[in-house]
Amino acid sequence: MSSGVGAVGHLFPDCSNGPLASNGVCNAQLSAADRVKALVDALETEEKFKLLVSTSPGVERLGLPSYEWWQEALHGVASSPGVRFNEAGDFSYASSFPQPILMGAAFDDDLIEAVATVVSTEARAFNNFNLTGLDFWTPNINPYRDPRWGRGQETPGEDPFHLSSYVTALIKGLQGGEDPDILKVVATCKHFTAYDIENWDGNERYEYDAKINPQELAEYYMPPFEACARAHVGSIMCSYNALNGVPTCSSSYILQDVLRDHWNWTREYQYVVSDCDALQNVFMPHNYRATREEAVASSLLAGTDLDCGTYYQIHLPGAYEQGIIDDAVLDKAITRIYSTMMKLGYFDPADATPYRSLGFSDVFTPHAEELVRKAAEEGIVLIKNDGVLPLQVPSEGNLSMALIGTWANATTDMQGNYFGVAKYLHSPYYAASQLPNVEAIYGGIPGDPITNGYPAALEAAATADVIIYADGPTTSTESEEHDRNLIRWSGERIDIITHLASLGKPLVLVQMGGQVDDAPFLNHPNISAILWAGYPGQAGGDAIMNILTGKVSPAGRLPVTQYPAHYVKDVGMTDMSLRPNAATGNPGRTYMWYDQATVPFGFGLHYTTFKTTINEPEQSSWDTQELVDTCTDNVAHLDQCPFQTVPIAVSNTGDATSDFVTLGFIAGEHGPEPYPIKRLVAYQRVFNVTADSDSDTTANLTLTLKSLARRDEAGNLVLYPGSYSLLVDVPTQASWNFTLTGQEVVLDQWPQDSGAAAKTGGLSQQL
Amino acid sequence: MSSGVGAVGHLFPDCSNGPLASNGVCNAQLSAADRVKALVDALETEEKFKLLVSTSPGVERLGLPSYEWWQEALHGVASSPGVRFNEAGDFSYASSFPQPILMGAAFDDDLIEAVATVVSTEARAFNNFNLTGLDFWTPNINPYRDPRWGRGQETPGEDPFHLSSYVTALIKGLQGGEDPDILKVVATCKHFTAYDIENWDGNERYEYDAKINPQELAEYYMPPFEACARAHVGSIMCSYNALNGVPTCSSSYILQDVLRDHWNWTREYQYVVSDCDALQNVFMPHNYRATREEAVASSLLAGTDLDCGTYYQIHLPGAYEQGIIDDAVLDKAITRIYSTMMKLGYFDPADATPYRSLGFSDVFTPHAEELVRKAAEEGIVLIKNDGVLPLQVPSEGNLSMALIGTWANATTDMQGNYFGVAKYLHSPYYAASQLPNVEAIYGGIPGDPITNGYPAALEAAATADVIIYADGPTTSTESEEHDRNLIRWSGERIDIITHLASLGKPLVLVQMGGQVDDAPFLNHPNISAILWAGYPGQAGGDAIMNILTGKVSPAGRLPVTQYPAHYVKDVGMTDMSLRPNAATGNPGRTYMWYDQATVPFGFGLHYTTFKTTINEPEQSSWDTQELVDTCTDNVAHLDQCPFQTVPIAVSNTGDATSDFVTLGFIAGEHGPEPYPIKRLVAYQRVFNVTADSDSDTTANLTLTLKSLARRDEAGNLVLYPGSYSLLVDVPTQASWNFTLTGQEVVLDQWPQDSGAAAKTGGLSQQL
Repeated sequence: MSSGVGAVGHLFPDCSNGPLASNGVCNAQLSAADRVKALVDALETEEKFKLLVSTSPGVERLGLPSYEWWQEALHGVASSPGVRFNEAGDFSYASSFPQPILMGAAFDDDLIEAVATVVSTEARAFNNFNLTGLDFWTPNINPYRDPRWGRGQETPGEDPFHLSSYVTALIKGLQGGEDPDILKVVATCKHFTAYDIENWDGNERYEYDAKINPQELAEYYMPPFEACARAHVGSIMCSYNALNGVPTCSSSYILQDVLRDHWNWTREYQYVVSDCDALQNVFMPHNYRATREEAVASSLLAGTDLDCGTYYQIHLPGAYEQGIIDDAVLDKAITRIYSTMMKLGYFDPADATPYRSLGFSDVFTPHAEELVRKAAEEGIVLIKNDGVLPLQVPSEGNLSMALIGTWANATTDMQGNYFGVAKYLHSPYYAASQLPNVEAIYGGIPGDPITNGYPAALEAAATADVIIYADGPTTSTESEEHDRNLIRWSGERIDIITHLASLGKPLVLVQMGGQVDDAPFLNHPNISAILWAGYPGQAGGDAIMNILTGKVSPAGRLPVTQYPAHYVKDVGMTDMSLRPNAATGNPGRTYMWYDQATVPFGFGLHYTTFKTTINEPEQSSWDTQELVDTCTDNVAHLDQCPFQTVPIAVSNTGDATSDFVTLGFIAGEHGPEPYPIKRLVAYQRVFNVTADSDSDTTANLTLTLKSLARRDEAGNLVLYPGSYSLLVDVPTQASWNFTLTGQEVVLDQWPQDSGAAAKTGGLSQQL
Repeated sequence: MSSGVGAVGHLFPDCSNGPLASNGVCNAQLSAADRVKALVDALETEEKFKLLVSTSPGVERLGLPSYEWWQEALHGVASSPGVRFNEAGDFSYASSFPQPILMGAAFDDDLIEAVATVVSTEARAFNNFNLTGLDFWTPNINPYRDPRWGRGQETPGEDPFHLSSYVTALIKGLQGGEDPDILKVVATCKHFTAYDIENWDGNERYEYDAKINPQELAEYYMPPFEACARAHVGSIMCSYNALNGVPTCSSSYILQDVLRDHWNWTREYQYVVSDCDALQNVFMPHNYRATREEAVASSLLAGTDLDCGTYYQIHLPGAYEQGIIDDAVLDKAITRIYSTMMKLGYFDPADATPYRSLGFSDVFTPHAEELVRKAAEEGIVLIKNDGVLPLQVPSEGNLSMALIGTWANATTDMQGNYFGVAKYLHSPYYAASQLPNVEAIYGGIPGDPITNGYPAALEAAATADVIIYADGPTTSTESEEHDRNLIRWSGERIDIITHLASLGKPLVLVQMGGQVDDAPFLNHPNISAILWAGYPGQAGGDAIMNILTGKVSPAGRLPVTQYPAHYVKDVGMTDMSLRPNAATGNPGRTYMWYDQATVPFGFGLHYTTFKTTINEPEQSSWDTQELVDTCTDNVAHLDQCPFQTVPIAVSNTGDATSDFVTLGFIAGEHGPEPYPIKRLVAYQRVFNVTADSDSDTTANLTLTLKSLARRDEAGNLVLYPGSYSLLVDVPTQASWNFTLTGQEVVLDQWPQDSGAAAKTGGLSQQL
């Protein structure tokens, strides 16, 4: 068995022998709470400080093992401080799925749960061989608000309803169910909250103060985290940035008033962890407290239980000496984090938990391998097609295919960031070279004067029947700590692509990585087709070739707006407002408030055509109060009250069998002005819809009162009388109009930030 | 012997056997011009296109060898397409000097010539073993106009007089003299002109259009290139950017009117090379010409002789077919580049040139090794010292020294960019560990939660007698294609440095890389000393330790302004103006126009104190016309007419022997308003000035009419009546006031850009 990760490992405590055996924490007859209390009661104060940091030494005296809390698994078990891959053989790799931005494009929550289930199974298998801990700092669920964001690729997209639905499925898959007896692994929703700038124009995440009004905070930035709370996620990570003057890790408004009090995120196994070194940043550069001791005390008191870093370990002792924290607050944090370990079965015998027998035969299984590819296939978006796709591969002879561009032979680029070791990385060129009756010609990377790439690319193109140009941003231009400042194709790329197009051969642009303004190519007569394939994971090339050759039909939809290049000049990243504002020049953000997209959110073509028809409910007007009063379902929150499940008839009117993503938006004049253009409220992906079938496939769009309600200026969720339209598909194919009458009904009273920027209030407020 | 570099090599042509032997180019009896003409006359048109690109195939038919024109040697023979280092043994390394920004701080032109002589000797040795060509694309001599510039480190600083003086010495060293019979190597002054933005706020160098008025163009951006022209540099590189609407590589105003006609840069061996792929950029993204063929034709016609890239090779044939270029213009370019090879002795027998016998015994000689270290020592600038420096190392027992920070154990970071393989890289920690009676403790990099760096750093500091904190930007934050957007210490660094300072031990901040605003530390009582050591090259640690321990006394001066952190918010990089402008908010640039520096240009402390006294000339007023009329020296340009050589008595009034850099500035009310605060016109470094000596050392500040003249709004250099002051040292220690009377006299009539932005004028203008 392996010897652990660095200085610490993930060995389970020895509850049979050794000092811990005699502690109540090992006594399965006691309640979980009593067991953790027994552990905490045994701690001496000086031992507590070090237990609250990510690389925990444990307590040797008590037999409490060291533990590394920091594991990553954004799209597969990933290299990180607590994860180790063996150099060869068993556990030398794990499944490597596409980046969330591409999986988001699938609009298929079942897919997401299946992916997360594979990830948590592999995590448990690695854990059983002491190669990882059980706390994973994933998902990144901040909405992808601005196209420049370097970490937008880590998220499923820009829409808060979509993110909420996606993350609910993901947490279920990671944690082992909606409400499991034993947590499979702990998921961590990050970065709470309003974190979506790395370093733009000198605004660094470590000191950035996001100014957001209550309406847009509640409406846009918070819903994914509320979904996490409702899905009983085990952990939430506070972020580097401040919100309205207060660093989130030191904000009792965010961590207590909203998260714990309002959202009732108070299960014993739920804890808040800081982003790495974010507690240092509370002191510097935020300058939120006068001393380092006050900075850590303020954070602990606000509700940050665990420090990724060492600031708690270094400065909590001083805070304790100064009397600004006491044992009670230390114990509360330790109780939370060790209750989580209890819930993971950490203190239980192996046979008491369902996951301890998993091994390497459960890693990258045939099912997982297929899912890795399928996740990419489902996400790939067809943006343009003049009919050249799917490519016709002859049954005899060869179709010669030139593969050109920075992504044509990509390997780890396909994994984006926060990735692990994959068994293989199949580039587009590799995948093409495996196809029967295809001659793949690698044309290199044009424009590189060292390798003479331009002439080589032209030569490859000259001899080929079809040109596949695969290019786009990589993590060298959009990544953690690096926002983009351009969202256009470079002049050099436009030159080579249009030069290749001038050869008059079929040319398919496979746009990889983040969105880039495709305007120079959308109407170019010689550019035959455009696919967007994001960061497609270890089987990305296979998935792309399956789509290009028609083995799989594309049905993904853009999970983000593709903005015109000039958008980055129109509004700064630091303007957090979503709504257009004539005074500031902000043209609006996301498809909800901006309608000048090059390619809109939700767009995606098929190899066939679809017709959608709404089976309209007979009733077309409702009274708001009556909708609430007749909500007899046992819902925990009023916004979950059902409204209507609207059946959509999906008819394949073309030739090819294809999935279809049914998107439902609400528009209309209701609630506070300005009105959003529309907002996503439901989606369902239907599968393998055959062409020319006599019977339509039905997709059901489930609408709740939340689908109808909007946030007022104070952030309250309100059901408003007014006109409503359900719009189906992008562009809209069908719509259903209805009205609500009566009074405004508040569904959710948003907690107000009374002391938001009370930076001067001093620490005593919190004690 | 080695087999060459990639597809092409640097083998000399065979003038004894083979097809070339019968061509006149090999006939040493003919004039150089006739020899080159014989070669050119033998070429077929289709062979010419490929000879004009950086990776030239030569002409096999004629026996003309392939040749790689692209070599780099910014601060030593450097890895680049044409340079190869052997894996081990002979020619596996070369001398690696500090980056120019640190060598600039030495203000010692003799040092620069000596360094360049070592570099060219080593280049010739490598060439003799077929490991490099003879054309080197160095120096980068654009003035360091803005502190954010990612490549500012490649330049000697921000002052155009300083750069001009530096580059004159450098070219002499590289090319083998002021006017040698055989060029030792070809130097290339780049990037001509007004290139100093990589990618700031989405403004990419490939399409940036620098808007500069004639006055500041002639006064600030052009002088270093004029100095290159006067020093007979073999090659000049046109830049990516446009200037006032015209890409420089396609600008006949820049390449013909200014460079060749006005500056008379017309020796047969002088050619213009494009920056890499800059000719593609003329077409896209500059969109300067409607077709690719017109773009290359326009560039060749404007005077760009050689293309780094392949655009000429691909598109000149089409331009030729279209009749927009002809053989005459192709021949002109080929004549220039092969005349240069002729001047390098390329077509001569080995015994006809003085450099063909150099070998590996001439590489990294003891002289070179000492010079590598000395170049760093001379440049290092002492910014603050409360008396803790020089450190007192005991003769018995140990001084324990904690070395902490990202640069404490730096290796290749010390080389900056454009570097070669060094025999060794001595970090500060390594150098400290070699010192007798010093116990070096490496404290790691604080603030890294993965390595638990913060506690480790505190632990190292706790046990040490003195703390050396070495930190600052590296090429990961300032580099080619990446301008900085922040020039401040991060909050995390301020936290750890001030935390270490709170221990109350001597703490020396060794600030590395580019300038960062030191304001948080300058007045901090517990931060004992601050050194700036830039990118100090392979012996950087040795040099730093020699300074810290007093073996060498620091005497470098800041070659750039150290701006306050807020400066980056005050003015955008795209504002090319130097003068303050209330309308735009530009606060002014460089010490000439901005007086709010944290640490000013020219600043530098010593381990002793110096007093300077001007031996004032008796005369204190001159008539402008008389100054010109009495210029009986045989000067090529009126601005070179001598004015006064002013002796400065330099007295060491302290204890330690030390070099002293004597800086002379001119200020006063003369010429067009606004008046610059002052401007550097002369400097001399005097060496080993001993303390308490009876006689002063004398430094001579040589003033010419150029020292007095200013540029008018049209860019003309004019000698103006008015008041003048010579100011010595920073801050000013001594001044001498004098006046000029009479009329304005024009010393240099600046060529006007009649068709500057005549983008619409079409190509026919040039034909």
